[in-house]
Amino acid sequence: MDHRSVLDTSVVRLHGTASSDADDVLAVEEPLEIQVRREGDKDWVSLSVTMRTPGNDDELAAGFLLGESIIRQRSDIVSVESWGPLSGELRVRNIVRLTLADATAFDACQLRRNFYTTSSCGVCGKASLETIDAMRPPSLDNREIRIDAENLYQWPARLRERQEVFGSTGGLHAAALFTSAGECLIVREDVGRHNATDKLTGHSLLNQIEVRDKAILVSGRASFELVQKALMAGVPMLAAVGAPSSLAVQLARAFGMTLAGFLRNGRCNVYSGIERIVTL
Amino acid sequence: MDHRSVLDTSVVRLHGTASSDADDVLAVEEPLEIQVRREGDKDWVSLSVTMRTPGNDDELAAGFLLGESIIRQRSDIVSVESWGPLSGELRVRNIVRLTLADATAFDACQLRRNFYTTSSCGVCGKASLETIDAMRPPSLDNREIRIDAENLYQWPARLRERQEVFGSTGGLHAAALFTSAGECLIVREDVGRHNATDKLTGHSLLNQIEVRDKAILVSGRASFELVQKALMAGVPMLAAVGAPSSLAVQLARAFGMTLAGFLRNGRCNVYSGIERIVTL
Repeated sequence: MDHRSVLDTSVVRLHGTASSDADDVLAVEEPLEIQVRREGDKDWVSLSVTMRTPGNDDELAAGFLLGESIIRQRSDIVSVESWGPLSGELRVRNIVRLTLADATAFDACQLRRNFYTTSSCGVCGKASLETIDAMRPPSLDNREIRIDAENLYQWPARLRERQEVFGSTGGLHAAALFTSAGECLIVREDVGRHNATDKLTGHSLLNQIEVRDKAILVSGRASFELVQKALMAGVPMLAAVGAPSSLAVQLARAFGMTLAGFLRNGRCNVYSGIERIVTL
Repeated sequence: MDHRSVLDTSVVRLHGTASSDADDVLAVEEPLEIQVRREGDKDWVSLSVTMRTPGNDDELAAGFLLGESIIRQRSDIVSVESWGPLSGELRVRNIVRLTLADATAFDACQLRRNFYTTSSCGVCGKASLETIDAMRPPSLDNREIRIDAENLYQWPARLRERQEVFGSTGGLHAAALFTSAGECLIVREDVGRHNATDKLTGHSLLNQIEVRDKAILVSGRASFELVQKALMAGVPMLAAVGAPSSLAVQLARAFGMTLAGFLRNGRCNVYSGIERIVTL
């Protein structure tokens, strides 16, 4: 196993009314910026930033360029190297630079706006958390909600009851807004989990639903992006049926959000903000 | 249930050595382009294209802008409307336009290159399949591999044996390259399933591994993006443990790729290219 793929963390394990401190292992999530230039050119063009698990970054970049028809064969790549400062707890480089053969046909200006970037920037060396900080998210400090653990364990079943499309296709992610008493207010489904969460926070904004005393439950895993969306909307808690990533946990801790993962079968792991969850 | 969220399709169901024609329901995936302008401005700025399930597009756009700190409150949105030609089998509009309050602080030029775009374009009215066609993917017509169904059913277990990080974190997607005889050659894991697939095709390209007689297995669902990546790499078959989306199926059919979904427990659904799978 690549040592840069996992990160140890401490967690509070809840099982029924019992709670205990434990160690857990997180899948690492860090931004990777892909930069390209043609052989003989001076300037690098930033093509894409994706949130990835470090390791095999040269392969990731090569596969990305192949999938987007920017390269067609091995000989289109003259060289590929990791670049940039050592970043994050695992000290990895978050930029990969590819020099492409002169004959490679790409229009840098057109490409520039055609790919994925998150709220992270490899090239400027700014950490993802600092970028979010610069976006001035609403403070969660005074969001003193209390959620009963035994109630929380019921949320996934309540969500599934409402997941109409998943029932017929098995193909959708869901996000739901819950009151602290455990009422499921709104459910949104989408092929993309980020979209389901956007629809939820967007619905709340458009209809001026107060979210500062509520929580979001997602049907899958919790990524950096989902914590970001909950945070910017002012929601103090995110619960996930699946695992959180390293950067999701770091972001939740940095801004005082409650983050629960593996919420199923009467259990969960609480990675941050345990004070909002009550076990009796 | 929103009628635009699902699409009926025909499928070949394999169970053990039995095969039967059946009807299936797919989660719809279509591109959505988000365009913004400030009140009083003439020109729309294309901010992002995301692959989404149609429905609640106004909410999706509002939530996206909120998450990216482009808007902060309800009053920042002056109006929001669907726009563009009716597109795809479900005749939905794939552009959403938001007029933002004059005071909203955003730098259009900077934003332009900061968000997600796939190989699809809402604004020019070009369908996603046409866009891929314009990228001239390698032809799969002569990739006459044959895969034994009973062998195929074993692939997910072989992948799980190799999923080292998932075992410890539960947090990673996996993609694997299989020979037609069922040997698992390479496994890549990542918090993002598109990244795991990029690493796989990138590894094959960098090491000049022949993929034209092989198949990719992914641990989760099959999206448009994953079919695109396999197609551009010249891989004639994609199998998924989870469900495919509508656009994934359409893309596989258009270019003659074999697409299998719900591959688990000695069963699968074959959405396209059944001729490459043998049941005895």
